[in-house]
Amino acid sequence: MGKRIKAIVRYDGTDFAGWQVQPELRTVQGVIEEKLGLIAGTPVRIMSAGRTDSGVHALGQAFCCDWPVEVPLEDLRRRLSQMLVPEIRIESIEPVADDFHAQWHAKGKRYAYSICQGREPDPFTMRYTWRILPDVDRKRVREVAQRVVGTHDFGGFCSKGVEIEDTVRTIHSVEVLDGPVVGPLDVRDHWRIEFEGDGFLYKMVRNLVGTFVETVRGKVPESTIEDILKTPTPYMGFTAPACGLFLVEVHY
Amino acid sequence: MGKRIKAIVRYDGTDFAGWQVQPELRTVQGVIEEKLGLIAGTPVRIMSAGRTDSGVHALGQAFCCDWPVEVPLEDLRRRLSQMLVPEIRIESIEPVADDFHAQWHAKGKRYAYSICQGREPDPFTMRYTWRILPDVDRKRVREVAQRVVGTHDFGGFCSKGVEIEDTVRTIHSVEVLDGPVVGPLDVRDHWRIEFEGDGFLYKMVRNLVGTFVETVRGKVPESTIEDILKTPTPYMGFTAPACGLFLVEVHY
Repeated sequence: MGKRIKAIVRYDGTDFAGWQVQPELRTVQGVIEEKLGLIAGTPVRIMSAGRTDSGVHALGQAFCCDWPVEVPLEDLRRRLSQMLVPEIRIESIEPVADDFHAQWHAKGKRYAYSICQGREPDPFTMRYTWRILPDVDRKRVREVAQRVVGTHDFGGFCSKGVEIEDTVRTIHSVEVLDGPVVGPLDVRDHWRIEFEGDGFLYKMVRNLVGTFVETVRGKVPESTIEDILKTPTPYMGFTAPACGLFLVEVHY
Repeated sequence: MGKRIKAIVRYDGTDFAGWQVQPELRTVQGVIEEKLGLIAGTPVRIMSAGRTDSGVHALGQAFCCDWPVEVPLEDLRRRLSQMLVPEIRIESIEPVADDFHAQWHAKGKRYAYSICQGREPDPFTMRYTWRILPDVDRKRVREVAQRVVGTHDFGGFCSKGVEIEDTVRTIHSVEVLDGPVVGPLDVRDHWRIEFEGDGFLYKMVRNLVGTFVETVRGKVPESTIEDILKTPTPYMGFTAPACGLFLVEVHY
């Protein structure tokens, strides 16, 4: 058994079937494990702070693994980066305690969701934003979003697909900020919603964003957010598209 | 004969063989002319402010054409945008005088060249930057670049391939600025060079950027810029890659 290491990784998730290894599919975890295995000469399994869905991006995902061979970590980072596809970049690798776990030890996460209100998609942000109608009032989205701040049972904002017992989470803040997560110099009509919380359930951020926008557009009743927070059955509402979502940072 | 119109267009040039129509190749002009022809029901030929090379991007290219049928211009803009591929976006269409010419009447242009000095490519800027070694001193690039400001015969910075008689151009300013032309929120180690001038010769901006960087790296003598400005034979030095270059704006 080697020593445990923690890595920070960023990726453009557009052309991946998400983080988690799946047979026959190109996944971020799959690509990283393949290259680590080639360097180590033996299979290596990595654990992330959380899975990201198909098409979701990361500026600062974290993962850990037991690294089985003696290689200086900076050399490992460089070799791994050189072998990886350009959509994935290893920011750092550092040694951690033997009992470190990228998911269990995460104290919180920051997500950003990028929105465009231009008349047409922008060639430089279309891979990285959800384009919504110009009639959605951004200030109202900000107001509505404040209703989920605090400690709540978010089971009703969790999509079906993952069984989890404890669905209580704390959202510390939801901010609406100028500008896209990724975009050009002269960008207009773009903004983003940034979430800071102790943890997020399956598709929770995209479901929250979908509900905020549907509420402001009057497509669902004003009380929808409160109703969903009281109803811990799987989310049945609108899920904002994956391409707008970025895992920005994992806090330890 | 219809009325002349002027359009502003932006495009991600990554997957195009440049602006100009070429047989069997996917070009920006070719794609726009095809869609305009479908709307008009008759072939339409467009003239740009200048051709951009294969892989070069535009935030604000301009073109004009004689529009043969009666369609309100805002409808035309919307229909054209809907039919176009997402990498091309029509920003505006307006009527202009019958003798307006997008190239001859351009008073000047702004180009930006985007540079990354990270240890590895960034997944979100790699399509839009030239990655150079961290040892290139940005302040020195700024100093060296000032030598081309003013009115000079830039024939020596023009690549072979286009015959042109008058190679005297005026560069009003060359600025070195923080940040990439297109990039993510948390970007580091990126900057750009912005050129403002009355006109630019074939590959001139990329040849200037290539020479600035080669000069600062000590790969060519300090006197290289002055030498090339005195030697109006085609440029033989290093040409910075197309992916970092953006036509930002055309002034009329």
